[in-house]
Amino acid sequence: MREVFHQSLEDVQSRLVEIAELVTEAIDKATRAFGTSDVALAEEVIEADQTIDDKAVALDELAIQILARQQPVARDLRIVVAALRVSASLERMGDIAEHIAQLTRMRFPERAIPKGLKGTFTKMGELDVEVAKTLTELLRTEDLSYLETLRTLDDKVDDHHLAVFEKVLSENWQGEAGATVDATLASRYLERFADHAVSVAKKVAYLATGDWTPDTDTIAVIIAEGESLDGAE
Amino acid sequence: MREVFHQSLEDVQSRLVEIAELVTEAIDKATRAFGTSDVALAEEVIEADQTIDDKAVALDELAIQILARQQPVARDLRIVVAALRVSASLERMGDIAEHIAQLTRMRFPERAIPKGLKGTFTKMGELDVEVAKTLTELLRTEDLSYLETLRTLDDKVDDHHLAVFEKVLSENWQGEAGATVDATLASRYLERFADHAVSVAKKVAYLATGDWTPDTDTIAVIIAEGESLDGAE
Repeated sequence: MREVFHQSLEDVQSRLVEIAELVTEAIDKATRAFGTSDVALAEEVIEADQTIDDKAVALDELAIQILARQQPVARDLRIVVAALRVSASLERMGDIAEHIAQLTRMRFPERAIPKGLKGTFTKMGELDVEVAKTLTELLRTEDLSYLETLRTLDDKVDDHHLAVFEKVLSENWQGEAGATVDATLASRYLERFADHAVSVAKKVAYLATGDWTPDTDTIAVIIAEGESLDGAE
Repeated sequence: MREVFHQSLEDVQSRLVEIAELVTEAIDKATRAFGTSDVALAEEVIEADQTIDDKAVALDELAIQILARQQPVARDLRIVVAALRVSASLERMGDIAEHIAQLTRMRFPERAIPKGLKGTFTKMGELDVEVAKTLTELLRTEDLSYLETLRTLDDKVDDHHLAVFEKVLSENWQGEAGATVDATLASRYLERFADHAVSVAKKVAYLATGDWTPDTDTIAVIIAEGESLDGAE
């Protein structure tokens, strides 16, 4: 029975990693499509989102089955509950990639990136891809030190997000209202994507600490002590 | 044991209703503050959000305790799992109310609502309050027919959301970039708030159907048959 259970937990984890990889692919393609007005690439992202949604639903059903049949307790229970939360956040991150692709498609054949912001949005897109890759590694390795990497990446995304608004609100902004709307929405999407990743990572940290809302100090201690999820068992 | 369990489930439900009521209050105050540039009211919303977050965390802990101690199966298990999802959505709806309040505070003493959009945003705010009230009733009564009401309200919010963009992108839009940014963000927040409510309602529908993603037809059948959550037991 224990062996069956650990097999199930490994299955949950490998499915989370698989969904995270699909999300990484989605944000990579979406931000590249956005940068180059590549409508075919944008379409790919929009079509692929259904796969992410389906896999998240399937994972939820697996988690419910595990709860029903194997009735885990203590840390095992928390892992399954956290998986439910993580899958919801990954699904949402996939939706955000889709929104960016939709913005690209809506503006085509015009460019979706407003003039003067190409550099900033390219950088934000690259950071979001980095965020998705880091999150995937965190889920794969259960190494909580990636949470700190994610926070650093998220801070950088936030800086660029503010820079977009500074640019748009500056006196020399030449964009028309449409460009301002696009810049606002795209920047908001890219910023939320990174926020969600930090939120997922906190949930995984909760696996190790049993605390849903570990503050920075707790996390710092965990990281300082080099404690991984395995170490916390 | 069964009695203890049903007591716990009632506790989960009453806590969800309580959080939904706080979210209703938050969106009501936030949209009024936004409409009247009432920074004191906006501050109230920002401060009160911590209470919503704390109550959502406490509810999650209760749900985990129930899973650990009472090991529910079948429909009882699905109720507890759904509660975890609903609490996450309610927390997010509270965050959105807070964002609207922050927008109000950031622009003070200027008006946050751009000229020419006061009527549209007032209406969207009222619809979102209606959305929150309807969701609260759905959680309180477990009456799935409220899902259809929520869908109708959400469609109306979406119509206004589109109207905001039409206005902003029209030739006679006089707003500066700052006004365009504010209109874009506020409209997006108000639209997302209603989206989340429909998403919560679908999760509650799942309690009745055991199907995470009931399509419109399934829901229509449930509603046509006048089936409530109690009826589905």
